[in-house]
Amino acid sequence: MNRPIVILVNPQMGENIGAAARAMKNFGLRELRLVEPRDGWPNPAAESMAKGAEDIISAVQVFSSLQDAIADCQHVYATSGQLKSMPKAVYTPRQAAEAMQPPLNAHQRVALLFGRERTGLTVEEAALARAIVTIPTHPDHYSLNLAQAVVICAYEHWLQLMDEKSSLPIVPEAAPMMEIEGFFMHLERDLEATGFFKTAELRPTMVRNLRSLFLKAQLTSQEVRTLRGVVRSLSRR
Amino acid sequence: MNRPIVILVNPQMGENIGAAARAMKNFGLRELRLVEPRDGWPNPAAESMAKGAEDIISAVQVFSSLQDAIADCQHVYATSGQLKSMPKAVYTPRQAAEAMQPPLNAHQRVALLFGRERTGLTVEEAALARAIVTIPTHPDHYSLNLAQAVVICAYEHWLQLMDEKSSLPIVPEAAPMMEIEGFFMHLERDLEATGFFKTAELRPTMVRNLRSLFLKAQLTSQEVRTLRGVVRSLSRR
Repeated sequence: MNRPIVILVNPQMGENIGAAARAMKNFGLRELRLVEPRDGWPNPAAESMAKGAEDIISAVQVFSSLQDAIADCQHVYATSGQLKSMPKAVYTPRQAAEAMQPPLNAHQRVALLFGRERTGLTVEEAALARAIVTIPTHPDHYSLNLAQAVVICAYEHWLQLMDEKSSLPIVPEAAPMMEIEGFFMHLERDLEATGFFKTAELRPTMVRNLRSLFLKAQLTSQEVRTLRGVVRSLSRR
Repeated sequence: MNRPIVILVNPQMGENIGAAARAMKNFGLRELRLVEPRDGWPNPAAESMAKGAEDIISAVQVFSSLQDAIADCQHVYATSGQLKSMPKAVYTPRQAAEAMQPPLNAHQRVALLFGRERTGLTVEEAALARAIVTIPTHPDHYSLNLAQAVVICAYEHWLQLMDEKSSLPIVPEAAPMMEIEGFFMHLERDLEATGFFKTAELRPTMVRNLRSLFLKAQLTSQEVRTLRGVVRSLSRR
């Protein structure tokens, strides 16, 4: 059975990376990925806060883009307290932990994204995810410390694991993000050529909405191939 | 409606006090008490970590003993990962949050104790509580960062609050700890006089077991008065 992969996007404080690793260890998570950590890697401040989680720290993988960090992941959830207005499902950590369990049981790779300390994830980053995870907080004080957000999600995953019924729902093998990304590039290139994006200003929003729509489908590799065939076919006219 | 009072016993790191305050703010908790913080009070490291929770920090009350810190509390829960073998109920944070809600709804004062960073609460300190709260963790990695333990308990309280059914169970007004303590002193003094504590070595354990037994009863003030009457009456013989 897999466990969720924690991905910290542009983390600023080494202390938070270390505290996140320790929290992961407390709740059975194993794999930590970083996207462009501000202070580089390795980071002594992270190591000194990661009590008992030295193995997680030494196995950290660093990526130069979020796209690369999620390329092999099949299910991506983005934590955010602010991006509730996107056209995506918004889960509580408990609901997200429940939703992740069947794919994890089926040995699929699930990523859980956390944004930078001050500003969280951007709209563009969250758009890469299948759904948003919002930790319910006091409405006037929604800004959680990064490691605190990680610990709550990790804790909910652990409870879910402990609770786990033996019945494993059957989960179709979802396509990894690199295949989805390949399809998006293909689609957008062809749309570009056909004047779909009326103006340069409108393009980013139109791309985002389009991607969002497909991401919600949790496509299989076969479906991605089918869609690429559709685009290819249509473009041929 | 009341909210749980967070009591940190001998906290060592100001950063943890500040992070705990911030987490409290995220989840609607208001009152923080400290028992003999290692580095005194106020503590600049706590203030700098308490982003958005300056009001909690400036209202912190400091006590020189745990007994004083809980004197006005009617329900006391002790968080511990290790003291599961005491003769007390052990709750998960979720179960504890559920159990606390009826007395909080009835405007009673509930305290949630957290021990020192390295060693947690002592047996003697946990013995003052009605029940133990144990955060379920990976069995090999149960040592949580202090502020992480606070955030999980605060988060569960907040979920409970959000979930709150409108039906408020009727809760008998529980006696504050100072009255319970008065009874214990009375009882132990009289037991001492009658040779109940066979040897000086046995005394602490016997006292602890005796207190534990009464604490589980969640006595009302009237019941405490009744018990004191019982002791007085018996001692007269």
